[in-house]
Amino acid sequence: MYTFINDYSEGAHERIMEALMRTNREQTCGYGEDPYCEQARALIRKKLGAEQAGVHFLVGGTQTNTTVIAALLRPYQGVIAATTGHINTHESGAIEATGHKVLTIPTDNGKITAQQVDALITAHYADATAEHTVQPGMVYISNPTEVGTIYSKAELTALKSVCERHGVPLFMDGARLGCALASAKNDLSWQDLPALTDVFYIGGTKMGALFGEAVVFSNRALDKDFRYMIKQRGGMLAKGRLLGLQFAELFRDDLYLELARHADSCADRIKQGIAALGYSFLSDSPTNQVFPIFPKSLIEALAKEFAFEFWQAIDEERDAIRLVTSWATKEEEVDNLLACLARLSR
Amino acid sequence: MYTFINDYSEGAHERIMEALMRTNREQTCGYGEDPYCEQARALIRKKLGAEQAGVHFLVGGTQTNTTVIAALLRPYQGVIAATTGHINTHESGAIEATGHKVLTIPTDNGKITAQQVDALITAHYADATAEHTVQPGMVYISNPTEVGTIYSKAELTALKSVCERHGVPLFMDGARLGCALASAKNDLSWQDLPALTDVFYIGGTKMGALFGEAVVFSNRALDKDFRYMIKQRGGMLAKGRLLGLQFAELFRDDLYLELARHADSCADRIKQGIAALGYSFLSDSPTNQVFPIFPKSLIEALAKEFAFEFWQAIDEERDAIRLVTSWATKEEEVDNLLACLARLSR
Amino acid sequence: MYTFINDYSEGAHERIMEALMRTNREQTCGYGEDPYCEQARALIRKKLGAEQAGVHFLVGGTQTNTTVIAALLRPYQGVIAATTGHINTHESGAIEATGHKVLTIPTDNGKITAQQVDALITAHYADATAEHTVQPGMVYISNPTEVGTIYSKAELTALKSVCERHGVPLFMDGARLGCALASAKNDLSWQDLPALTDVFYIGGTKMGALFGEAVVFSNRALDKDFRYMIKQRGGMLAKGRLLGLQFAELFRDDLYLELARHADSCADRIKQGIAALGYSFLSDSPTNQVFPIFPKSLIEALAKEFAFEFWQAIDEERDAIRLVTSWATKEEEVDNLLACLARLSR
Amino acid sequence: MYTFINDYSEGAHERIMEALMRTNREQTCGYGEDPYCEQARALIRKKLGAEQAGVHFLVGGTQTNTTVIAALLRPYQGVIAATTGHINTHESGAIEATGHKVLTIPTDNGKITAQQVDALITAHYADATAEHTVQPGMVYISNPTEVGTIYSKAELTALKSVCERHGVPLFMDGARLGCALASAKNDLSWQDLPALTDVFYIGGTKMGALFGEAVVFSNRALDKDFRYMIKQRGGMLAKGRLLGLQFAELFRDDLYLELARHADSCADRIKQGIAALGYSFLSDSPTNQVFPIFPKSLIEALAKEFAFEFWQAIDEERDAIRLVTSWATKEEEVDNLLACLARLSR
Repeated sequence: MYTFINDYSEGAHERIMEALMRTNREQTCGYGEDPYCEQARALIRKKLGAEQAGVHFLVGGTQTNTTVIAALLRPYQGVIAATTGHINTHESGAIEATGHKVLTIPTDNGKITAQQVDALITAHYADATAEHTVQPGMVYISNPTEVGTIYSKAELTALKSVCERHGVPLFMDGARLGCALASAKNDLSWQDLPALTDVFYIGGTKMGALFGEAVVFSNRALDKDFRYMIKQRGGMLAKGRLLGLQFAELFRDDLYLELARHADSCADRIKQGIAALGYSFLSDSPTNQVFPIFPKSLIEALAKEFAFEFWQAIDEERDAIRLVTSWATKEEEVDNLLACLARLSR
Repeated sequence: MYTFINDYSEGAHERIMEALMRTNREQTCGYGEDPYCEQARALIRKKLGAEQAGVHFLVGGTQTNTTVIAALLRPYQGVIAATTGHINTHESGAIEATGHKVLTIPTDNGKITAQQVDALITAHYADATAEHTVQPGMVYISNPTEVGTIYSKAELTALKSVCERHGVPLFMDGARLGCALASAKNDLSWQDLPALTDVFYIGGTKMGALFGEAVVFSNRALDKDFRYMIKQRGGMLAKGRLLGLQFAELFRDDLYLELARHADSCADRIKQGIAALGYSFLSDSPTNQVFPIFPKSLIEALAKEFAFEFWQAIDEERDAIRLVTSWATKEEEVDNLLACLARLSR
Repeated sequence: MYTFINDYSEGAHERIMEALMRTNREQTCGYGEDPYCEQARALIRKKLGAEQAGVHFLVGGTQTNTTVIAALLRPYQGVIAATTGHINTHESGAIEATGHKVLTIPTDNGKITAQQVDALITAHYADATAEHTVQPGMVYISNPTEVGTIYSKAELTALKSVCERHGVPLFMDGARLGCALASAKNDLSWQDLPALTDVFYIGGTKMGALFGEAVVFSNRALDKDFRYMIKQRGGMLAKGRLLGLQFAELFRDDLYLELARHADSCADRIKQGIAALGYSFLSDSPTNQVFPIFPKSLIEALAKEFAFEFWQAIDEERDAIRLVTSWATKEEEVDNLLACLARLSR
Repeated sequence: MYTFINDYSEGAHERIMEALMRTNREQTCGYGEDPYCEQARALIRKKLGAEQAGVHFLVGGTQTNTTVIAALLRPYQGVIAATTGHINTHESGAIEATGHKVLTIPTDNGKITAQQVDALITAHYADATAEHTVQPGMVYISNPTEVGTIYSKAELTALKSVCERHGVPLFMDGARLGCALASAKNDLSWQDLPALTDVFYIGGTKMGALFGEAVVFSNRALDKDFRYMIKQRGGMLAKGRLLGLQFAELFRDDLYLELARHADSCADRIKQGIAALGYSFLSDSPTNQVFPIFPKSLIEALAKEFAFEFWQAIDEERDAIRLVTSWATKEEEVDNLLACLARLSR
């Protein structure tokens, strides 16, 4: 049964597999200090137009979020995030396990606004007994968000400005960053990212690599001794070159965005097809996750032909599901899915 | 200027001070293993009708909550609490600093219900990817709550039953426990507490002691090695007898509740007086905290004659304030306050 | 320049690479619940003769040690380890970052004895103020140790017996487990491991896999909810099948030990060759790490032809170095190394 | 039976008790921001000649050490301390519970030297894989040490200089600070302390107060947001004035040192008396702890007349015990003790 459950069901793009095969018996030093990591760093810096950026490779997303956040916060500080933020919902309390509270901002569309962040921080310092509460120490956003939406350049600029005013760093989780940048709705460039965040990561796992995330610090003050943190928190791969090789391949040319464009385009076809059938969506996602609202009976029938994730109860008769496409999604399976939906909707 | 800001503005009841003076030059062993602590333990166990209960003394409330919660949870578990719960709002992230998330339940009146707890736990285990989220590991309630309300015996019985069904312990924060038990609306007895919780604490700091909280474990499986925890988390007083002496004095007879009755009665007079002037309240508190809603102009004028805490914005014209009484509140200052309010309300 | 610096300089054995290539476009579910992980679990259980063992896959060694130890200890407990233990020296304080002290036992040969463990635990409970010190909560050993030595069956049996008597679990770090079992000096069988430890891990990263470690719990009480821990501590790979595929390949037949035998045999040739030249060794290692003591001048000259790690200063004229072989070590480079050493020793 | 077990067996000096009684019904604000705390801060700053120092009051020693250390270290750093240091031995792993390793330096006399600290830090940064090990982030010393010895001005100056050179702060645990400063062997002044440390604390609990420790930051960069830390770690007393009142009394005149002088003088009499009987000592302590080495039979007999602590096994026939004097020690009991020892030595 074909699955639209997530964007990490397959292995990696063939160019990556070939790079791993080609270099398999080479000897390199470990822990991310080999020539392939150096090459990948150079390619990423060039793509970002940020020659001075600090670039580090970690194995997975939870590690990356945890390590960056633990590195940036003082013990009495918390991280501001949307209630829907991955760190608040699906990392088994990894942030709290490093000693920090997630200070949540309610959201409908997965995004938080400059105004909300400003209000939260201002209220903290206005409190006469501020020290009895958790001090807001940084801001975490996801782009795309967990419900597929993306930040506009204006929104991100406003957020960065508020963060600077309050002296707190802005961290962007880019587990699916390619799908944001490749989206038809996107107006952010690669160069905007280091300019409008203090630190962000370029997701590999969900974007065509076997695994791996590349953390980029444009604010170099923040990555002092960051390698100690990576090692301590379990994100430092012995054969670090595996990460370098993969990111070098993804950034040697436009492969990274090319794979994301495929994912977004498949999702867009699904979205258009479902809309044409008259259904609505939980969120207006222009990226590779689609959240249609279907009658429960249709969902039950669909589940016999395709795999996907139940997302959220809507009302007595309807639920929202999640359909995820990826760099590996087969065009004909998108056709099959839409045909199936049309059939079930008759 | 007389203050109604909180219930720890004065020292301790004179009987306590005298006990400290009387025994000052006696030599005892340290860390809570002296005869006075033994005596206090015996008196508390007798009052509770729980001869087998584990009783431990700590210096303050934040320590106590942190130590109990850190002792009870496994690393991947969180503690369920009301959004208004002290551990969620006013302990500077102490719980998170021990590695645990506070799993919040929204509330209007400071209380959480058996149904809410049941729903939260059930939803957790119904999630196919439960292990990506924080496992609910215990339930924290305050009695009285942070807005002065109290749990009825029926409510507490239902909560305990849900907790038992799901195998999670129930912990009651009794920082102002006396004011709950002494309230005219209360139907819980001392004996009910060990029966209807796994662990709770009897607050001293806000109830007439200089400082100190007595933790009571009716579920003895949970206090294995608890003294290591007290020591590690900084709650073990070298001159532990200071805690024993105070609690022995409070529980030698009915002093503990007598002091609470005074606080509640002063608060009730304030509440009746304010209601008679036609004002409403943020919460229907039958204990020693009163949350009247006043015009901002009145609040400003009142602040020139009495000290109190701003609590919450209500609307353009009105705010809620908090007035707290205690074992030490002077009757004539209650009169003065009411006279002042009457004057300002004309 | 050929390197004997470590056993993770190359990629993975070709059978592993081929398995990854062959299955690259298959869709599987994530997080270690796919058919390849199931297959690997079954093969490992069969090899161990432990059909009921819990088997979990994590990405790397630091993660694995941290996650197991954090899962097993109560907050006031520490882990007993040799001073040379990896968790005490080369994990950037990862264990302490989970809140636990490493309780060290001094050692000359990397091993700790049943007597030492017994003495440490006995002394703890004999202390009248035991609760002011860290309670010993588990025992950590490495096999082979960090200096290449291995535990005999008698030694391990004695350790396990002491641990059982004191009620503390025994955890074996098997980052290079193959090299222990494949050693000519070894008398432990696969079946002994679950019988003589409560939990151990089978290292992949240093034994021919790209990465990955397989944790085996023979004591099933200890792996309750262990997947929450793996997720929280960053060890859960999204494309978990990568781990399953690799371990399935290593355990489908005798490949795992075959690769280790090659490493041990190369090391043994190096050791014999060096001994024949009249040099001594820091430790009597029968596995894939050799620690010869050389004149400083020889070390300097050798460093121009081969890469290796400085290990420890010995005296004015001599230092110890470390030479590590692996599944990938080339026989002719062993010849070259020995020829070079012979030349430099003339 | 009279006890020489420790220096916290009695209550507090009478002047302190009287201050508590006299002010008992006064209303003050909480958490250390009341006029009595302000007064105590002013008195302490004046005594130290450090008008700009940050002064904070906490309840006990373990809290204080934990809070200061957790505030100063980055997550990947550890604290350098003597193996005998209180934080390494008798705080139930409180430091590790905040995530940090104690990096120990072996010592015979409880003190660590500038050379040892320099060597440890230099070795860390000389290691090519430094980031795989814990970074030394601060230095902890006790004065007097746990075996009663004290730092000379020259020793402390050298330590401070090494710390400054390496950019790590120096923290002095002064649980018994008075007994160091009052010692006949001491050459440190009050004014030296802020000059030669970055942060230290003035112990109250063991020096004549009921409880309480005063932390002094001469390096103000280090106490930014320290009140959040105090609150989070459980060291912030609701009725903070109790701490202010006590320290104001101790520093209003020379009471603090006067009480320490009494303790030291009693200890000195005990030491002289024991030496005259021909016994030796485990450490050459010029403060209020004496560590005589006695035949086991004598210890057994002595234990029937006085209480004291067994300290350490020496050989087949002898053990070391600890005798502690305090501000409250009765001169006649010193006489009795010496008479008893003379009798038992005949």
